[in-house]
Amino acid sequence: MPREATLATERRPLTVAVIGATGVVGQETLSVLSDRSFPVGTLRPMASGRSAGQRVVHRGKEWTIEALPDAASKNDEGSGAKLAAAFAGCDVVLLAVSKELALRVAPAAAAAGAIVVDNSSAFRMDPATPLVIPEVNEDALAPCRAALARGEGCIVANPNCSTILALVAVTPIHRLARVKRMVVATYQAASGAGLEAMRELESQARSFAKGDGHEAWDTRYFGRPYLFNVFSHDSAMGADGMNEEERKLVLETRRIWRDDTVGVSATCVRVPVLRAHSEAINLTLERAVTLEEVRAALVAAPGVCVLDDPAKNQFPEPRLASGRDETLVGRLRMDASQPEGHGVSLFLAGDQLRKGAALNAVQIAECLLPSIRR
Amino acid sequence: MPREATLATERRPLTVAVIGATGVVGQETLSVLSDRSFPVGTLRPMASGRSAGQRVVHRGKEWTIEALPDAASKNDEGSGAKLAAAFAGCDVVLLAVSKELALRVAPAAAAAGAIVVDNSSAFRMDPATPLVIPEVNEDALAPCRAALARGEGCIVANPNCSTILALVAVTPIHRLARVKRMVVATYQAASGAGLEAMRELESQARSFAKGDGHEAWDTRYFGRPYLFNVFSHDSAMGADGMNEEERKLVLETRRIWRDDTVGVSATCVRVPVLRAHSEAINLTLERAVTLEEVRAALVAAPGVCVLDDPAKNQFPEPRLASGRDETLVGRLRMDASQPEGHGVSLFLAGDQLRKGAALNAVQIAECLLPSIRR
Repeated sequence: MPREATLATERRPLTVAVIGATGVVGQETLSVLSDRSFPVGTLRPMASGRSAGQRVVHRGKEWTIEALPDAASKNDEGSGAKLAAAFAGCDVVLLAVSKELALRVAPAAAAAGAIVVDNSSAFRMDPATPLVIPEVNEDALAPCRAALARGEGCIVANPNCSTILALVAVTPIHRLARVKRMVVATYQAASGAGLEAMRELESQARSFAKGDGHEAWDTRYFGRPYLFNVFSHDSAMGADGMNEEERKLVLETRRIWRDDTVGVSATCVRVPVLRAHSEAINLTLERAVTLEEVRAALVAAPGVCVLDDPAKNQFPEPRLASGRDETLVGRLRMDASQPEGHGVSLFLAGDQLRKGAALNAVQIAECLLPSIRR
Repeated sequence: MPREATLATERRPLTVAVIGATGVVGQETLSVLSDRSFPVGTLRPMASGRSAGQRVVHRGKEWTIEALPDAASKNDEGSGAKLAAAFAGCDVVLLAVSKELALRVAPAAAAAGAIVVDNSSAFRMDPATPLVIPEVNEDALAPCRAALARGEGCIVANPNCSTILALVAVTPIHRLARVKRMVVATYQAASGAGLEAMRELESQARSFAKGDGHEAWDTRYFGRPYLFNVFSHDSAMGADGMNEEERKLVLETRRIWRDDTVGVSATCVRVPVLRAHSEAINLTLERAVTLEEVRAALVAAPGVCVLDDPAKNQFPEPRLASGRDETLVGRLRMDASQPEGHGVSLFLAGDQLRKGAALNAVQIAECLLPSIRR
């Protein structure tokens, strides 16, 4: 579906801006654009002032990183118009920056007429902004298609990584028998916190190898040893005891499925893994299913690769998911602790930087390309 | 309670055999005996032939490791009697060996009149053998007390590590409001698979630091990279898709709680941690509770240390649990995906080698010491 969209629009090369191009998601976005032969005519990588002037190579051609305009970090009168001017001529703007920056940059880029896909949480719960996983709710893009047909821009929010991976795997089962409740425990990688967090984990392995005790490890990012440790996700904790990562799973699932009754109970945990997340998921279904039905639904599902070989103990692992587009799904089994046929358990692993961020954003842009007016 | 038992029986020093003394659980058992001033008069560390003759120091005194008698690995006529003779005079026999060895050694040691505590799964589901976590079901030791009073020996099974840690944390809530269903996702350390598995994880960190790609890492034990990875627990998988580690959580929980109706759904996963397990647990309760009631029950519970400080993001971590006797419990919260007051979530971390194995076994022995006939 996204692939066909790409082919259908290879009419003229596009101007594509990648904002936050030096960050870990920005870099992955450039890889994904290249891997998928996204019809980039002009690439405009943008980043903070200190990276400006550096070069990036994209499909054999060098591009210079532009500084994000000053107006992006100011909130004074006219900054929106100045920012919009900076994005004049952009067809697609992919944002991999903080929520604070995204809140200013995304509307300006959309005002300039671009398809804007934002990786931050800034617009995810905004009713006017579609929150989209193409395999799950591509139809939610309809208002954007209409805007583009009128020659206007639009903003689409990329869901949180844990939500994307969970819903790619669970939606095929939801379509089969409606998920009433979902209990999720995550095993999240360093990459979700960015390049610095990944480097900190690697540096701790080097310190360990040198024989340094963990008092001597670099723990500046997470404030605690990460190597050989796991810890509760480092997002802000609400008064209800739920951290923001868990809340995103609850609220984004409801929004994407358009079902405010679905129960989601999540525990989000960081494990010392570099770039792919895993999740243990237990489902309560509205109607009874067989394991064969579940397996068939997953085998047929876009974006899913079923890896479920008990004989070889081959199941999803973050190592196997790293660098892959598909979400690996396995450990498929009926849950005997629930009424017969109504409980299903599974385990998944998916690349947090690809499907959990950059790939999903590029797929959204691909879905919208045919609607650009030319 | 176990502490008092120890004091009450410091009448005469005991002969204590530790079988599998060179393994990781055996070594921890020696530490725990020492830390708790267990009344060891004569220590008989035993191990396989290749460790025989080595020395261990226990509370300042050197003891020579004995070879486990040949009869332990034979099943011929008279081997039981030969083995029993080897344990003559032993008051306490703590077994940290394979299920296969335990099946022969434990009955022989009990026949010799000893309190036998077995760490393997050999006797856990045997209706004639108590399966005990002292904080949870010390009363299940009654038949052993009676046997000891008659001058006979007895076998007690030490539950699986994941079960011990889960039930230390969950039983106080179960007593408050009866747990109907428990969904568990584990984050299990290398130590559960033994010393070799721990060394393999450490060696992979050293290989990574040297710049070796994972093709060059030592993966002999688990057959896959463990550093920066997680994978489904390496126990045998049943036809129902449940692995043995998960099945133990289901069956042992029912047996220890004497409740065949409790639903347990477990996903057991190894994470690259050296010696403490963590578990994300979601409970469904029979009657509604408040978070304050749950917290008060846990604060008052033996063997539990509540570590739940959202302001400092201080929650249970395997690093913090390592070397500690208490199971750390935190991330306490009501689960809004269930009827009000009926859902509770928590996260725990506990030392797999201490409370998950050696400490629980020594505590069982402490409970039984007052019943030894003299």
